[in-house]
Amino acid sequence: MPSHERERKQVGRKPERASYEFADAAAIIDEALVCHVGVVRDGAPVVIPMIHAREGKRLYLHASPAAGLANDGRAGAEVCVTVTLVDGLVLARCGRSHSLNYRSVVAFGRVERVTDDGEKRRALEAFVEHAAPGRWSHLRAMTAREVREVDVLALDLDEFSAKVRTGPPLDSDADRALPIWAGIVPLGLVPIGPPVPDAFVPDGVETPDHVAAWRSDQAAGFVARPS
Amino acid sequence: MPSHERERKQVGRKPERASYEFADAAAIIDEALVCHVGVVRDGAPVVIPMIHAREGKRLYLHASPAAGLANDGRAGAEVCVTVTLVDGLVLARCGRSHSLNYRSVVAFGRVERVTDDGEKRRALEAFVEHAAPGRWSHLRAMTAREVREVDVLALDLDEFSAKVRTGPPLDSDADRALPIWAGIVPLGLVPIGPPVPDAFVPDGVETPDHVAAWRSDQAAGFVARPS
Repeated sequence: MPSHERERKQVGRKPERASYEFADAAAIIDEALVCHVGVVRDGAPVVIPMIHAREGKRLYLHASPAAGLANDGRAGAEVCVTVTLVDGLVLARCGRSHSLNYRSVVAFGRVERVTDDGEKRRALEAFVEHAAPGRWSHLRAMTAREVREVDVLALDLDEFSAKVRTGPPLDSDADRALPIWAGIVPLGLVPIGPPVPDAFVPDGVETPDHVAAWRSDQAAGFVARPS
Repeated sequence: MPSHERERKQVGRKPERASYEFADAAAIIDEALVCHVGVVRDGAPVVIPMIHAREGKRLYLHASPAAGLANDGRAGAEVCVTVTLVDGLVLARCGRSHSLNYRSVVAFGRVERVTDDGEKRRALEAFVEHAAPGRWSHLRAMTAREVREVDVLALDLDEFSAKVRTGPPLDSDADRALPIWAGIVPLGLVPIGPPVPDAFVPDGVETPDHVAAWRSDQAAGFVARPS
């Protein structure tokens, strides 16, 4: 491993906000619905949003044979996978102290294409269960052709860092005496309306719990918000 | 411009979802609170979440002299800046057709460090107004030292593409006859609780409208939407 691979996961800016614990990174990865995958093409960076899922140390990326990253994956491309959850606006008393509360993970490594049929099917199940836990058992089974039509890439989570900002703005004591409202606006990626069935759901098929109550623990905070 | 710079913005996968219109890209960039910036270091990709703001064709990135990207910026690094808004879960009748509704922009170019004091101050105001429109006029003015302590990088939005997925799952006719619930769960990054003032806000300072009603047009969608 070249020296930059040992060092690049180190958080340079505000290292007190960093964690190198797997459990911290895993929780952030599991909550995020998309990740941003960086690769180098023709010497230049390319960053693409992708759907992911995690099984243990294995991070799966949902690719398509038509997409460039699937080709990169076949070649064992080096990638950087970053996930970011925005948790709130941090509104301070001067421009300098404004920030966001967030949780992020940056992971480095080489992707490989998943060719084992069993692992590929487990990964495809993991993509669905990652987005909507409890859904897979409701679905029509995938055909062999459908499994072939998807590319799954895998990255082992060996080299990563997590970074978290929480809490109020960090204004100076002098600024805190000013008559300016400061604090946070807590944010989350939550349902902004009820589930919308498509036009073909037969009569008598009710909205299942895994849809109606999707992350309802988080959404409940919104409903309770006073106006 | 080498040939790959003319071609790399072209969306290869599902090109019918692509747009190369500036207004489409600008709207997505403006709604996103964070972007993901990819650079190449030691030949390998690095993707970092950053705060941004846009003024016309100019995309500003909020850096820190302590962070690696500020050094990359001084060297005129080539970057790829990607923003992604997750708009909903797309829950289909088989694993293959599951997706997310989203809007994303991928922009390419070289960042430069903003050295003009006037432009830098306007960019710092833009960061605050981007996150919380109407806030800047409430703040204590930034000092010359504070302005110096922040690095602002700029990318001209000359080479970009937007990509949007909307609408219901795209199941086959055969699958649509199955007794399986399918549809979308609309999602948005919205307040999940009331604004939280910090411990130092003086008595008599009320929560200003730009905080209390932050993107309330989007949040209201949840309440007003028919079920």
